[in-house]
Amino acid sequence: MKDDQMPFEAALVERAGPLEALLRRLLDDRPLSGEIARPQRLMAAMRHGVLNGGKRLRPFLVMESAALFSADGEAALRVAAALECVHCYSLIHDDLPAMDDDDLRRGQPTVHKAFDEATAILAGDALLALAFDIVADEATMLPGERRAALILALARAAGAGGMVGGQMLDLEAERIRPDEAGIIRLQAMKTGALIRFACEAGAILAGAPAADRERLAEFGSAIGLAFQLADDLLDLTADAHQMGKATGKDAAAGKATLVALHGANWARDQLQGLVGQAHALLDPYGEAAVLLKEAAKFVAARTS
Amino acid sequence: MKDDQMPFEAALVERAGPLEALLRRLLDDRPLSGEIARPQRLMAAMRHGVLNGGKRLRPFLVMESAALFSADGEAALRVAAALECVHCYSLIHDDLPAMDDDDLRRGQPTVHKAFDEATAILAGDALLALAFDIVADEATMLPGERRAALILALARAAGAGGMVGGQMLDLEAERIRPDEAGIIRLQAMKTGALIRFACEAGAILAGAPAADRERLAEFGSAIGLAFQLADDLLDLTADAHQMGKATGKDAAAGKATLVALHGANWARDQLQGLVGQAHALLDPYGEAAVLLKEAAKFVAARTS
Repeated sequence: MKDDQMPFEAALVERAGPLEALLRRLLDDRPLSGEIARPQRLMAAMRHGVLNGGKRLRPFLVMESAALFSADGEAALRVAAALECVHCYSLIHDDLPAMDDDDLRRGQPTVHKAFDEATAILAGDALLALAFDIVADEATMLPGERRAALILALARAAGAGGMVGGQMLDLEAERIRPDEAGIIRLQAMKTGALIRFACEAGAILAGAPAADRERLAEFGSAIGLAFQLADDLLDLTADAHQMGKATGKDAAAGKATLVALHGANWARDQLQGLVGQAHALLDPYGEAAVLLKEAAKFVAARTS
Repeated sequence: MKDDQMPFEAALVERAGPLEALLRRLLDDRPLSGEIARPQRLMAAMRHGVLNGGKRLRPFLVMESAALFSADGEAALRVAAALECVHCYSLIHDDLPAMDDDDLRRGQPTVHKAFDEATAILAGDALLALAFDIVADEATMLPGERRAALILALARAAGAGGMVGGQMLDLEAERIRPDEAGIIRLQAMKTGALIRFACEAGAILAGAPAADRERLAEFGSAIGLAFQLADDLLDLTADAHQMGKATGKDAAAGKATLVALHGANWARDQLQGLVGQAHALLDPYGEAAVLLKEAAKFVAARTS
């Protein structure tokens, strides 16, 4: 970790505080209006999958992109929490024996290990439903039209043409080795779609012009690609202790990644290029975008 | 099947026509705006789980309850399709080896049998996201406030305090035998919540007064309870051929149901009482509610 990234990491930790508190409240055992009861074991599994010390990068991107357009901070916090529920549900299902079969996540037992497979499947399902519940709720103080627009963008980023579609392509990649364009598409869907949504969400929250929304989405796409490249590099170079999960799995599985295709040096050059591209996209916003620019650097240089 | 139910079954089939066409369109391989690509195998699995000859009872309830309040028919059709996506995703996940481990559904291989477990998990996930996509889309010609209200009610009916919570309680019921109140709560969540939403949805679609919304929701609760009682009776008396799935599983598993607790004759009396209660709730709407009343009878008397 380079010295000039310390202020960013401090900002990340600071922003995570209110988010953790909101997530804890949303994952409470007490039923909401219209709910009959919240089974304790299910809620415990959901909390295990969400309140696990994640860096909350996606929520940070929602909150910072919202701040860029002076959107309401409380509304942004709720959208950020919803997005984190989607991200965490996807990790729970991804870790299942039928999927990546991982026992560890951030150094802790995965949900199906700490509970059981059926509970992990249901906890993931409930988190996905909760995400849309959170945004749709009137407590997210936005006009209905804007809540609906956020839900549409989130559902599309998460669904068959986004994250879940990317997970499907990733599973198939073990049999059908994709070419370079196939790998890029897979990654733009699997990890890129939610990061893109995170950055776009601020513009939607604020009802910003379409051009701003598109610019932020492109920024999201660039750092999403950088995120995945950094991940592939880490898988090659880091050890399990550093990552809190199994590493070297990609290479062992002969998995097609851009790093496997072009090597680590190429990947590092690419990362620099993507950060530059991301920064250029934010230049029109001047000083207000400084933390988002730091986020791009952080994503590209992360070591865990 | 009694003779006086034939007209209702004809209405059910007739209403299903446009719904099947819409579902087929929504589950197309071609990506929508904002989507990158829709993996063929994933879409095929989603279609397998949805376009399977279901009776489309829940969509029928949405469309009829919407008609009761003169809501827009096209908007109701889309909400109906969304609800069916939620219902079908829950069946796909429920059939998984880690859950009920069923090989057959409506006489066909379940999704994890026709494809594989990972694909079935992802197909279910994608269907849940798609449901919210459908309602949130501007193509559902309703004010944003109303789309958001429908999404909130659907998410809450589907989530930890509704259907998924009920599935969790159902899994636990094999270990912790629930008492009568516990069984009723379990069933109100597992099967009741979505049926209740189906009936309530029409009132939300139309922006009907809160009293109407509550009345339709109560109607939904009554027929939801009837649906489950009829299901438990069928499990006791029907054979696998008739049901298109394994039967007698509840008794074999020593599973706590109201039928197991009180016997078949008590259940038949209860069913009559619930139909009467459901009908009384719709009396204020006169002739306009005749098909919904038929639906209550159908649910209580169904033989498959």
